[in-house]
Amino acid sequence: MREVLAQAAFQLFLERGFERTTVDDIVARAGVGRRSFFRYFPSKEDAVFPDHERCLAEMTDFLTAADGRDPVGAVCDAARIVLRMYAADPEFSVQRYRLTREVPGLRTYELSVVRRYEQTLAGHLRARFAGSGDGDGELRAEVIAASVVAAHNNGLRVWLRSGGEGDPEEAVDHALALVREAWELPGAPAGPAVSGALASSAGSRASGDGEVIVMVAPKGTPMWRVVQQIEAAVGEG
Amino acid sequence: MREVLAQAAFQLFLERGFERTTVDDIVARAGVGRRSFFRYFPSKEDAVFPDHERCLAEMTDFLTAADGRDPVGAVCDAARIVLRMYAADPEFSVQRYRLTREVPGLRTYELSVVRRYEQTLAGHLRARFAGSGDGDGELRAEVIAASVVAAHNNGLRVWLRSGGEGDPEEAVDHALALVREAWELPGAPAGPAVSGALASSAGSRASGDGEVIVMVAPKGTPMWRVVQQIEAAVGEG
Repeated sequence: MREVLAQAAFQLFLERGFERTTVDDIVARAGVGRRSFFRYFPSKEDAVFPDHERCLAEMTDFLTAADGRDPVGAVCDAARIVLRMYAADPEFSVQRYRLTREVPGLRTYELSVVRRYEQTLAGHLRARFAGSGDGDGELRAEVIAASVVAAHNNGLRVWLRSGGEGDPEEAVDHALALVREAWELPGAPAGPAVSGALASSAGSRASGDGEVIVMVAPKGTPMWRVVQQIEAAVGEG
Repeated sequence: MREVLAQAAFQLFLERGFERTTVDDIVARAGVGRRSFFRYFPSKEDAVFPDHERCLAEMTDFLTAADGRDPVGAVCDAARIVLRMYAADPEFSVQRYRLTREVPGLRTYELSVVRRYEQTLAGHLRARFAGSGDGDGELRAEVIAASVVAAHNNGLRVWLRSGGEGDPEEAVDHALALVREAWELPGAPAGPAVSGALASSAGSRASGDGEVIVMVAPKGTPMWRVVQQIEAAVGEG
């Protein structure tokens, strides 16, 4: 029933436009009563994004189970849950992306949803950083969550703008790797996305007794490569 | 007139609540006709945030004039324009913060405004990075803009939650310094907030002929300190 209503709603939004479609139109197309609609969706906007609530719940569960992992890697992987939701139905996702660009009310709705994802990620980081003695834990949590969401959305948007062609994971992995490079704490195990991109133009060595790291790189080496190398060295220690 | 309307509106929102106040109530209190309201404000929500349009315009002008500066430092300073708008009237800002927490429609409106600031900052960074040969320029622009906005808002919120006591610049400077440490490109001149926090527990040397940098630090040195040291060394070259 929920699925039938969401499909009827979306077809009508594409045919007539979002503003010109009423809830009465939607329930008539779906062949159900008006109250059925509101049982499943608080508003017309919610019917355009029927999977975000499930996705938010899944993200929360995922993060609860990720408590032992490196926090930045965990929230990056949590963000990928959203990507997979979009990737599961490329045609619908691309059509919805185009519809959302045209309807200010849907853009506003989307901002609210994005904010809820960001707050979910920030909440996890805040709890993880709280025990680390880092006085900037809350600040770092919010900034890293915002970075992860922006990177994820950049990768997702590249894929949506291309019409849903190819593998969306690639652009998102690349974008999230940039965030991990900037924010991952020393000693955190590097994920495959990071270690897969290790620069070959710089070298670093970790000493055996865990005392000192020495980093040598050609001047002009991009900062992200330098950081990657140091992280790799510290991670080995 | 605009100011009078905004003040009348805000008084009524505090007295009766945002939802229960009509535009007719506002124009009656201000002693003007209904059409005057809509000449200045597209909606009731806009009257709660009367200064954001001016502030966005000021930010755009500021960034246009900042084209020769280090890009990350420039967008951090651009974000401070928003802070100064809040700091100019602490009592109003704190009351509005409390009102906004209670009214979902105002929170949504605020998200839209924040998004416009973020896009203004990202637009500047995108243009600046476009000529640098960095294939990730657009990605970096969006992620850094999101980081700057999140950091600014964290500092601003600390001050608003405290009831507008003390100097709001301090928390925001501290928050923005964290972002600069994470994202500033090598070779960019370090701002006072960054150089003032330089770690003393690590040392680095830039070679005279600009060929190689060598970084030595006790293992376990926080990553941000390591990055700071390298940035300082590269900046000297």
